[in-house]
Parts: sequence; C-alpha cells; structure tokens
Amino acid sequence: MMGKQMSLGLFLMGTGHHIASWRHKNVPADGSEDIRFFQNLASIAERGKFDMLFLSDGLSFNGLSHPAELVRFEPFTLLGYLSAVTTQIGLAATASTTYNEPFHIARKFSSLDHLNDGRTAWNVVTSYYESEAGNFNRDNHLDHSVRYDKAFEFVEVVKGLWDSWEEDALVRNKETGVYFDNEKLHALNHKGNYFSVEGPLNSSRSPQGRPVIIQAGSSDAGTSLAAKTADVIFTAQQTLEEAQAFYAMVKNKAIEYGRLPDQIKIMPGVSPIVGRTEKEAREKYQQLQELIVPEIGLAFLSDYLGGLDFSNYSLDDRLPEYIPETNGNQSRRQLIIDLARREKLTIRQLYQKVAGSRGHRIIFGNPEQIADQLEEWIDKGGADGFNLMMPTFPDALEDFVDLVVPILQERGVFRKDYQGSTLREYLGLSKPESSYSKKYVQH
Amino acid sequence: MMGKQMSLGLFLMGTGHHIASWRHKNVPADGSEDIRFFQNLASIAERGKFDMLFLSDGLSFNGLSHPAELVRFEPFTLLGYLSAVTTQIGLAATASTTYNEPFHIARKFSSLDHLNDGRTAWNVVTSYYESEAGNFNRDNHLDHSVRYDKAFEFVEVVKGLWDSWEEDALVRNKETGVYFDNEKLHALNHKGNYFSVEGPLNSSRSPQGRPVIIQAGSSDAGTSLAAKTADVIFTAQQTLEEAQAFYAMVKNKAIEYGRLPDQIKIMPGVSPIVGRTEKEAREKYQQLQELIVPEIGLAFLSDYLGGLDFSNYSLDDRLPEYIPETNGNQSRRQLIIDLARREKLTIRQLYQKVAGSRGHRIIFGNPEQIADQLEEWIDKGGADGFNLMMPTFPDALEDFVDLVVPILQERGVFRKDYQGSTLREYLGLSKPESSYSKKYVQH
Repeated sequence: MMGKQMSLGLFLMGTGHHIASWRHKNVPADGSEDIRFFQNLASIAERGKFDMLFLSDGLSFNGLSHPAELVRFEPFTLLGYLSAVTTQIGLAATASTTYNEPFHIARKFSSLDHLNDGRTAWNVVTSYYESEAGNFNRDNHLDHSVRYDKAFEFVEVVKGLWDSWEEDALVRNKETGVYFDNEKLHALNHKGNYFSVEGPLNSSRSPQGRPVIIQAGSSDAGTSLAAKTADVIFTAQQTLEEAQAFYAMVKNKAIEYGRLPDQIKIMPGVSPIVGRTEKEAREKYQQLQELIVPEIGLAFLSDYLGGLDFSNYSLDDRLPEYIPETNGNQSRRQLIIDLARREKLTIRQLYQKVAGSRGHRIIFGNPEQIADQLEEWIDKGGADGFNLMMPTFPDALEDFVDLVVPILQERGVFRKDYQGSTLREYLGLSKPESSYSKKYVQH
Repeated sequence: MMGKQMSLGLFLMGTGHHIASWRHKNVPADGSEDIRFFQNLASIAERGKFDMLFLSDGLSFNGLSHPAELVRFEPFTLLGYLSAVTTQIGLAATASTTYNEPFHIARKFSSLDHLNDGRTAWNVVTSYYESEAGNFNRDNHLDHSVRYDKAFEFVEVVKGLWDSWEEDALVRNKETGVYFDNEKLHALNHKGNYFSVEGPLNSSRSPQGRPVIIQAGSSDAGTSLAAKTADVIFTAQQTLEEAQAFYAMVKNKAIEYGRLPDQIKIMPGVSPIVGRTEKEAREKYQQLQELIVPEIGLAFLSDYLGGLDFSNYSLDDRLPEYIPETNGNQSRRQLIIDLARREKLTIRQLYQKVAGSRGHRIIFGNPEQIADQLEEWIDKGGADGFNLMMPTFPDALEDFVDLVVPILQERGVFRKDYQGSTLREYLGLSKPESSYSKKYVQH
C-alpha cells in the first residue's frame, strides 16, 4: 500500500542556508556566483527526483544578512540557464509584485515555461526589505496592506495575460498565409486600482497553461492571497501542532474561495541535518554554529525584529520584553519571538538558531530518523511536502539524496522516477483552463 | 598583409528577417518559440566565429508586424538559456529605458555576464511602438526628446551600479570570517530628474567590467547618446555614401565626448542573399517576396510611416507626397521615404522592399560578390562590421557561414578562430575601469 506522496523542493541558496556555510571546509566560498556550482546542485536534485528547485530573491544589497545574498545571480537569467542544463526538475523563481510591472513578469515566466517545456513556477512576493524602496525611486516601502492589495491585482493581471492566446490560436498555415486565428486572441484591457494593462501578451499560452504559482505569506492577508490564487504555499512552522493548524486553516480558506483543497499544496521549509547517528548530526551542526561571526548573527536577528538594538545586552541575556513592530515580514517576526520565549533561549542561542536555519525548522538524525520526521508531518496533516533548506552545499544535499531519498522511495511516499513532464504533473495539480476556453466554468 | 578586421553579428529573428520567411518551404513556421531552433542557429553562428548573437525586442503585441514578433521568447530568459549551450559567441539583448527600472536592468545584464563568462551586451532602446505604453499604465508614449533624456540618465545609473563592487571587493576569507572589503563597495546614491537609485547592486563586478553597450538610434539625440555612451552602434544606411557620412559623423561626435574613435564600432544591418550566381540570388529573393500577403506588407509599411492610410491607393501607385509625422522611429521613417523617392518605387515594390529587409540594405550575389560588398564598406570607412539579417533561418545562415565566411577568412578580414574569451575582446574594446578604481582618470 502506498502512503500519501510527498513533494520535495530544493531551496537554492549560494553556499547553503546556514549563514556561516561559506566558511565550512567542504563548501566553495564563492558559490553564490558560480554557475558550475549551481549546475551541480541542480543535477544532484534532479538525480534525487525532486519536484523543483526554488530561488528566493531580493532587490537590494543588505549589508549583514546571509552572505550568499550579498551578490547572487538574478533569477530569470539563472533559470534560463538551468532550463538548458536540466531536463526534468521544476524551476521556481521569486519575483516581487511591489517593484515590477505585471506585463514583464507575465512574459518572463511564460517565456521560461516555453524554454523548459512546462517546468516553471513563480513565487509571488510583495517584497520584504525596506532597503528595496531606495533602488526604485521611492522614499518608503509601501505599507503591508497596500502591498497585498497591489499583489492581488498584480496576480490577476498576470493570469489574464497568460490567457491572451488560446492553445490553438497560432495556426501558421503556410498555404493560406494565415499566421494566427484572431478569434482566439484576447486583449486584456485591464483598468484597476494599481495597473492599466491592455495586452495581449506577446508570448503564446505556455506548456502548463499557466506556470505554477507559489506564495509564502503567512499573515492573514498573505494566506488569503495564497488561498485564492496560489498552487503551492511555502511556510515556516516549527511544530507539528502549528503546522496542522496552518494546514487546516489554509485548506479551509481555499474551499471558501471555491477551490478544491488538494489543488493547493503546503510545503513548510525544513533544514535536515543527516548523520550516521542523531548525535553525529547534532555535532555536525554545532560545528557550523561556531563559525557564525557574532556581529553578523545579531544583525541578521535585528533585521527580522524591527531593527532591535542589541548593544545594551550581553549575548547571554534573554530576548527583551519589548520588540519593535516591523513593516516587513510580520509572521516571521512572531515565529522568532515565540521560539525565543518557548525554548527560553539566550540571545546567542537565538541568533544561532535563527541565523542557522533562518527561522525554519531543523531536524536531526540518521537517515531513517530524518525520513520518519518528514513522513510524520505528511501523515498527520501538517504538510503536503517540504522545501528543503540544506545547511551546506553540495555535501548536505548529496547526503540527503543518497541516504534519505532511497528510504522515502522504499516506503512508497516519494517517487522513484518522474511521472509526466511538467511541474504541475509532478505536484498533482490540474492544468488550468483559459478563461476564454469554451469548456471553462467560472467557480 | 591583413586587411582591417570586420565584426559580424547575427540578428536573430524567429523564422528569418523576411516577413514571409515562415511560409518558405525550408523554414519551420513555428521557429519563434522553438528553443531547439534557436539553439541550432546559435551553434551555426558560433561555428562561423561570429562576434555575437543579437535579439531585438518589443513590449507589446503588434498585430500586423513581422509574424516572428507576435509571440517570441523574452530576451533575458532566452539569453540565460543560450549562455548554457554556447561557449564562445557574444550574446546581446535589447532592453528599453522607457519601460524598465535601471536597477533591474543593471542586475540582469551583470548576472548574464557572470553566467556566460563575459559575453554579454545590452542594446539600449527607448521603445518605438506606441502600443507599448498601454501595457505599462500609461495613456501615451513619452515624447521622443523626453525618451532620450531619460535614456541618458538611465544608462548613467546602470553604469554606476555596475561599478558597485570593485573587482577585488569580495575577500571571502574563511579564516577571519570577512566576506567582503567594505572600502571597495560603493553605494550609488543617485538622485536625478527621472531616477533615484541608492544601490549598491547585489551583483559583483562582471567579467567584462561592464557588459558591452549597443545603441541603434540614428536621430540627432540617438547618435549623441550613442557617441557618449555606446560601444557599438547598429544602423541602417542603404548606400556607401550615406554610411560613410554616418560613420564619420558618429566617430567625430565620439571624439567631442573625449572618446577614442576606435572604441565605438559601427555595424550597419545588411541582408545578404547568397546564390551560385547573382541571378540565382535575385530569383531566390523574388520567391520570398511573392509570399508576402499584401495586407500585411501594407500594415507593416504604415506602421513605419506614421499610420499612413493606403486604402485610397492602388498597389501600383507611387508613395503619396504627404507622409504623416511619427512619434516613433524618425530616422527609419526618413530612410524609407528616401528609398521610395530615389528608386521611384510603387507601393507594392516599396512594401516588398521594406517588409523583406525591414528597411535595411539587401545585397545579392555569389559568395565572392557578397564578400566583396561587405569588404568594400569596411575598406572605405562605411562600417566596422555588420549586423547580419538573414532572410530565412536556418538555410540562409548556413549558406553564409559555409560559403561566405571562409572567403572573408581567406582574405584575412575575418577571424579564423576566437581570440580571447569575452565579447569586448572579440570587438577590440578595452575593459572599462571602475569609476572608483585608483587608476581611473575622468575623461
């Protein structure tokens, strides 16, 4: 009997998700701009039959955040490249709805989906860093609620543009000289609160109908946007109970929007640390923690906590009572505060925990134990899959693919080979009808 | 004795530059969104030792223009892909300064230059089609002079962002934990008439120092922008005399801006039609001309001529005296009018000529005659190289590479193999110093 299948995404991040990964002896320090390094990671993940590679993104320099984010490849150019050197794995890029135009975004993702024959996904973000505003002619970041209003409209425009050409619109009849069927081409003529976009798109309907849409907001506005428009949700719960509550809440919201709950996949982030024993895994991790430079760990933490100033505290103090509000990622802020209070962590322990995993869950163990912990969340309604945040590249990824994946396959909870050829097919998502298709029924 | 070396660019255009190319028996009609087709063209051009592949672009659907422009790949994603499947040839993409943000553009070209180890170029355009405004929240296209003012500032911001990181700024010392040298990182803090951009860029200095900059404007504002900021100019003269005048004018303008004239390369577009005899070449071409659907030829012509309405004219009439002004490409409009008057063409002959070559020069002949015509312009100060607009793909490109290139190589006017590894090296352009480099002297 087959258990419920899990999806696996690989969250690419230069030298690895651990903030000190670049200092580790097994890691090339300059990985974040080395295409051969990325190509190797893609190839290992494809060997592991992962659903997709995922690229986060930021539109500014952030001095003391993760070093692998200081300089890095731009997602569209990198995914164009990776489309050529992979053949099966899905490719997901982040693009902001706050600092882009929907026409550009619709077009680039459609073009990518053509280039890789239907393996493309868009991670919709509203932009998190205050510093991004300064690179785009603005003095201030937009407020959280305005960003989400704008994002709703942005996504609707992009989906509308993706429907510009019906699937059989391009006739290209050499005999008659008719290149396309004008009846199957649709201008959008959108006029909304934030955007006016005429269309049609100068890209034909892509192999997936529409590229997969991912979202990661966990606030109320974020989960509403996701429940209404996303195919996949990345999230960051620490405990099974939190994960189950989030999972049920989002699937219910999706039902309220008239969607089928199995058409929205929930994939928490997790950092698996694999050893021959759990003890060895924990020791391995502690070696990495010791490579964190304190100033960087604190700056990283401060960035999540509304600019909290640590200069009057010792590293052995607890987190203070008062934590400033942030106009950035609010759910992430709360997760970190909850973690500190629950586990009674010192500031040093907290920055090590947060910097190491960036607020995501870490699991330790031998390969069986890692597989158990993943499977438990799937079985108990906490997740449909995971976005894997390996602490170091490439070694921790190789360990996972060589040691954990075969166990999941043996247990029947993860594919032994790709079925189908598009990312939608891997994830079990149906192909969207065009809103102009005769078969289309508005839900 | 070696003659003056010529540069060769291949202007990619779906099925070919001839507007009816997709109907030709040797051409796959759906080439404009077939990545294997593009990959094959890139591979033929690289076999021919061309300096670069060039992609034009447009940000809207234009119903009756060249069919290969109706739906097509987006340049950044496509050049990302081609970066992976080519190893030597330069890769040039068009991006508009009217409908983009300089931070995005600086970053994408820098990322591409990292991905392909220094083979990247940016063709700066101010956007030509009125219809593009409607896709970007605007009722009207910006006026010609405003577009060029904005373009000047845009290019300066992009160059400034490319200088964010000095070449040795990323230290990545595993021992000390120092990732970068703060003294060698520079915020831009640009505040101008059109853009406010803080920087720094989240991409390190790219292999070419700065990607190559191409421009194609032929108006007074366009050539001033080019003479001040461009490394390469694409242009469209029809006769050697016009070409010589343009060449001398631009090189003189460059000198006025304090630049060395050999650091700006002038590459007219040309469509070579190769046959075993000149007669065979002309017959080949006439077969293509006969495939043009009249409605499409007229619409194409009208688009260049300020929306001129042909409904009261017969196809055998001459071009009327009064031609409406255009807010689009003004130099192209004048070239077409001059062509019609000089050669006393009927409307049909004009649309065939313009649609076939899109206003660029066509040359006919056997391989020796094609080589002669190219060499003459180089020898007589009309060009530094050519942007080749093959009428059909892939066959006309294969003919050129297999039959004409060897003659040029034999004559010593074109490379037998790539020297160096960056596009700047192929073109004979020096590597730009960072504006923050100690060696830098402001000209």
